[in-house]
Formats: sequence, C-alpha cells, structure tokens
Amino acid sequence: SRSIRLAVIPGDGIGQEVVPQGLKVLSAVLPQDVKLETEEYDLGARRWHATGETLPDAELESLKNHDAILLGAIGDPSVPSGVLERGLLLKLRFVFDHYVNLRPSKLFPNTATPLAGRPDIDFVVVREGTEGPYTGNGGSLRTGTPAEVATEVSVNTAYGVERVVRDAYARAAARPRKKLTLVHKTNVLAHAGHLWKNIFDRVGAEFPEVTTDYLHVDAATIFFVTQPERFDVIVTDNLFGDILTDLAAAVTGGIGLAASGNINPSGTFPSMFEPVHGSAPDIAGTGKADPTATVLSVALLLQHLGYEAEAARVETAVAQDLAERTGDTPRTTDEIGDALAARVSG
Amino acid sequence: SRSIRLAVIPGDGIGQEVVPQGLKVLSAVLPQDVKLETEEYDLGARRWHATGETLPDAELESLKNHDAILLGAIGDPSVPSGVLERGLLLKLRFVFDHYVNLRPSKLFPNTATPLAGRPDIDFVVVREGTEGPYTGNGGSLRTGTPAEVATEVSVNTAYGVERVVRDAYARAAARPRKKLTLVHKTNVLAHAGHLWKNIFDRVGAEFPEVTTDYLHVDAATIFFVTQPERFDVIVTDNLFGDILTDLAAAVTGGIGLAASGNINPSGTFPSMFEPVHGSAPDIAGTGKADPTATVLSVALLLQHLGYEAEAARVETAVAQDLAERTGDTPRTTDEIGDALAARVSG
Ligand SMILES: CC(C)[C@H](C(=O)O)[C@@H](O)C(=O)O
Ligand SMILES: CC(C)[C@H](C(=O)O)[C@@H](O)C(=O)O
Repeated sequence: SRSIRLAVIPGDGIGQEVVPQGLKVLSAVLPQDVKLETEEYDLGARRWHATGETLPDAELESLKNHDAILLGAIGDPSVPSGVLERGLLLKLRFVFDHYVNLRPSKLFPNTATPLAGRPDIDFVVVREGTEGPYTGNGGSLRTGTPAEVATEVSVNTAYGVERVVRDAYARAAARPRKKLTLVHKTNVLAHAGHLWKNIFDRVGAEFPEVTTDYLHVDAATIFFVTQPERFDVIVTDNLFGDILTDLAAAVTGGIGLAASGNINPSGTFPSMFEPVHGSAPDIAGTGKADPTATVLSVALLLQHLGYEAEAARVETAVAQDLAERTGDTPRTTDEIGDALAARVSG
Repeated sequence: SRSIRLAVIPGDGIGQEVVPQGLKVLSAVLPQDVKLETEEYDLGARRWHATGETLPDAELESLKNHDAILLGAIGDPSVPSGVLERGLLLKLRFVFDHYVNLRPSKLFPNTATPLAGRPDIDFVVVREGTEGPYTGNGGSLRTGTPAEVATEVSVNTAYGVERVVRDAYARAAARPRKKLTLVHKTNVLAHAGHLWKNIFDRVGAEFPEVTTDYLHVDAATIFFVTQPERFDVIVTDNLFGDILTDLAAAVTGGIGLAASGNINPSGTFPSMFEPVHGSAPDIAGTGKADPTATVLSVALLLQHLGYEAEAARVETAVAQDLAERTGDTPRTTDEIGDALAARVSG
C-alpha cells in the first residue's frame, strides 16, 4: 500500500488557517489505499520569539525524512525583516536544493483581474531557486558611516542555470503551445546574461519542438499587463522570478490564488509547496483568508508525487468553486476549504 | 540675452524621427530672447557599423560644453546586445553622473491603459542612476565551460544612496501629497537593503512633512496594477527602477508617452533627457512613432533649466492633444509634432 509522508509547516499568520484547508482537501482527494502521514513542525515567528531558533539542525534533518513539505506562510512584523525569510524560508529552499521554483499563473473565469478585457492568461514561470542575487553573497564595509559600501553578489553557475533551463524546456515541450521565453537583462548584466543566454540557446537544440523567445525583464513586465496571453513557459533567475510572479499573481486574481512549488527534481530532498502570499497579519484570525492558493499548491504537490489524476481533480474543483462565487456571500476560510474538499471527494 | 546650448543625439530607429519633433516644440515654446543653439552628434548603430566607435573621448568632451542633452533612442538588432547600451547610453549616465533618473508617470485622460477602471495615476519614480547592479562589476570564470561561474555585483554606497534619497525627499516635499515610498528587497538583499533603509529613515528626519512608506519590489509591482493611485514619489535602486518604470509606462498609456530625465543635480555635467522607449526598429521609417514621450522629455528639460512656465505649457499642450485624439484619424510623427508645436506657440 502506498503512503505519503508529509511535513507540515503552517508558519505564521494566515499560514495557520490556510494549511488545515489544504490538508483537508488532500485527505479528501487521495485514494483510500494511500496512507497520509503528516508531521507538523512548529517553525516561524512564535518559535523564534520563544527560543530564538529559526530552523534548528535537528528539525532540518527530520524534515528530510518526508516525501514533501507543505508550508503556509512565514513572517511577522514583530520579527526583524529578513530573519525568518533568510533563516527559515530561503534556508529550506537552498539546503533542499529547490532549484525549480514553479509558479503557474492562470486567469480562471469569474475571478477578479485589474486588467481590462480579461485576457486569456495561462502561463507558468520556472524561477531559479538556489542562485542569483539570493545567495547572501556580498557584504558591507564601514557600515553605518558616510563611507559605507554595501554589495550584493548575484552568483550564477553553468551547473545551476543549465539544470533549471533544461527543466523549463521539458515543461514547455509537455504543454500544447510548446513555447519558452527566457527573461533576463542581458544588455546590462552582461556576465550573468551571457551565461543564461548561451545555455538557453544550447539546451534549446535538444528541444527542437519548443519555440523560444527572449525578453529583457523590464519589457517582460510590459507584456505581463498588455499581452499576457503571449506567454506559455517563462524561465528566469531568482530575483526576476520573484518580481515577475508577484505581478503575474496580481493580474490573475491576486495572490490569494497563486500557488507555488519549490521543487528538487532529482528527489534527493523533499520538495516544498506553498502559496505565494505571505502571512497577512492584517487579516489573520478573521477567517477572511482565502485557502485557494494553498489548495492549488496541494495540486502541484500531488502532481510532483505522481498523483496526476488527483491533481487534476483539485484544479477542477477550484475552477468550479471560483466559477460559482458570487461575491455577495463571503465565505470563511473554513467554508471554502469544506466546499473544495466536498468537490474533490464527490 | 539668454541661451541654451543643447547637444542632440537622435540615435537609432525612431530616435531619428521623434527628436526633430521635440526640437520643433522646444523652439516653438521658448521665449524670443532665448537663443537655442543645437549641436547634433552622430552616435549609435550607424556610427558603430561605420567606425566601430560607440562614444569617442573627443565627443564625450565636446558634450560637456552643453547645458543639456536631448537623446532619442539607442540600439539596433544588427548590433550585439549590450554594446551600445553599455558603451554609449550607460556610459553617458555614468560619466555625467546622472544620479537622479527621473521618470514621471501620469495617466492622461483619453489615453489607453490596460487597467480596468482607469485609476488616477500620477507618480514619479526617482531611480538611482549611477550604482547598483548597473556598475558592470562582476565577471565570469571558466567562461563557456560546464564549470562557469558568472557574477554581477550590485555596488551601493552611502554617498550614492544618500544623495538620491535626499533628492527624492525634496521632490516629494514639493508635491501636494508629500509622500515618498522606498522600494527595495531588504528581506533578501540585506546588505544593500540595510544601507538604503537606514539612509531613507535618517534623511527622512530632515523632511518631517513627508509621509514615508516602504515596499518590497515584488509587492510594489502588485500595487502598480491594483492600486497605483497610492504612489506619489518612489525612490529605488537602478535595476528596480528600470523594471518598475517600464511597468509604470505600460499602465499609463504605454512607453509611447513615458518621458525621462537623467539628471545631474549639481550641474557639474549636462543632464540628459530621453523618452523611455527604445529605437523600435519594427516601426522605424513608417511615420507611426509617437513623438509625445520625447516632447514630454523636453518638458522635463525645460523644467531642469528653470523654464517652469514653458515646461507647464508643453505638458498642457500634450494633455490637450491627447484629450482630443479620436483614434480614427491616425496622425504621423510629424503631424503630432506640428500639432504640439502649434499649441505651445499659440
Ligand atoms: C519572503 C521572500 C523571501 C520570498 C522571496 O523573495 O522569494 C517571497 O517573496 C516569495 O516570492 O516566495
Ligand atoms: C537600454 C537599457 C540599458 C536601459 C536601462 O536598463 O536603463 C533602458 O531599459 C532604460 O530604462 O533606459
């Protein structure tokens, strides 16, 4: 009989509220013979305040004994900016070598978009997750004086770029439109830009069926709002991917719907699935948080673990739920979770 | 009697077409007693193909003998990416210490925006222009091999950050809403982030009348499309400013309307005014290029040189021209230039 060993990190704020809904839907959609074993980890702001710990080694070790991780949200205004982001969230992505940060964007019918004309949006961003300006390289000299110099070093390796670019090509090849767009800023960031562009072109030869395109990151933001239907799969570096996927979320129903997977395709370490949104302390505890992004992240988790049919059922349930939302009867976090669980088990 | 010594770099593609319109409007709006002396520089793709030169020292020296520079657009697909950008455009910005890259965004009535509901947009981005990831620092090791490492170093100095932050505060203080938003990514780019944030907070004490705000760059892109009316003045680094101002242009009528000033506030070197758009080789020669962004850049130029009333007249002329555009009678580049010139001299 099959089993899924799932590590669960609800984290902070609304993370605590949306994760139970994700688990509810996951339990409901899984075949009877699949045993779901969850282990919850108390990590985030509460823990840091109580013990000063962000991610102790023992917990990091223990997390490795799982097939996947479901994470809610990390961060609270009471914790200095960066402490939990770098000490917990980015640490997980880096230590578990989550080099494919997968962020699909789809404009479901009947969802809000700030764009007039409701363009047909259905693309996925493959964001590099372990290099670029996110490595923490750099430093500060004469800190706090008028002579301070602070640097940030974007580190890009052929090893790191090639594997994520190849993954993106494979994803593009598996989609109907088979189109891959590289986004970078080669005209200014020439060293990293050449590395990315050369590898993008070279690996492309292995995927003759994939149409390719290149855009500077500034131009890409224009097309995200004027012509988002032109995108199919996008591959880009860690920082550009961070920026573009928030914009993508904004034009496709908001970050309440944006899912993501931090994927280690080799399977050496567990992959981690999380909504793109943060802990939203302003609405935490009110029952207003939309668990849909978490539920869609569960769909990515299912897909990653090979439960394709179940993943599709979760996505269909979300699409149907969104299609029937009227706006005049706001439901609670729990009610939306219940409705989605009922649909997938139906 | 007064005079303006203006260096003119039409550059490539539609740069050659829009710059004459900017000059037409400038001549028409200037008081009779102001002598306009222009000197044209042949720089860009044609020159590079002919001589291999991007910006020879003699020309750089000669450019210094002017009160300002009007630039059209630089770049052509026939020139390897980066050659003209770094060898000409960025070289001018760096050598002439254009540390304030000023980019106003205003949604004029009757102009196209991809945003539903036509929000009330009127903000200005003060983009740092001489540091950050644009310094060309970094390099590549084992280039072209599977062991390649390519780095890009973002260099940030207290000297460079403080002067642009102070300039942005002063601009915010002079506007009715008096609001300044710092955009960075302090939770990840901690070294540079702390430098920016500390200086932003410290200089703020000198401007108690200015309301301040901080946003991560990813979150800022969301607000650009969902709530752009919340912004008044934004100050940010060179790369974030590049990305945000293209997005800003996209939501306020497109890059056909976006103006910019590369300003050296100390006056040691001439400031340079240019439309945000590129050379648009696809429409070059068709007469379809909209010279409005160049004309609005001329308004920024006038403002910078102290011709406030003339700058206001140019902006009013543009607003009126846009308000009367019907869309069913497309005008040529020249016709729009004529119409704007007629309005300002009227
Ligand atoms: C919280 C932050 C460190 C993170 C990032 O920058 O990657 C977030 O913005 C995201 O996109 O998951
Ligand atoms: C052409 C390029 C080097 C330039 C930049 O990145 O600054 C352009 O995008 C701009 O915004 O003026």
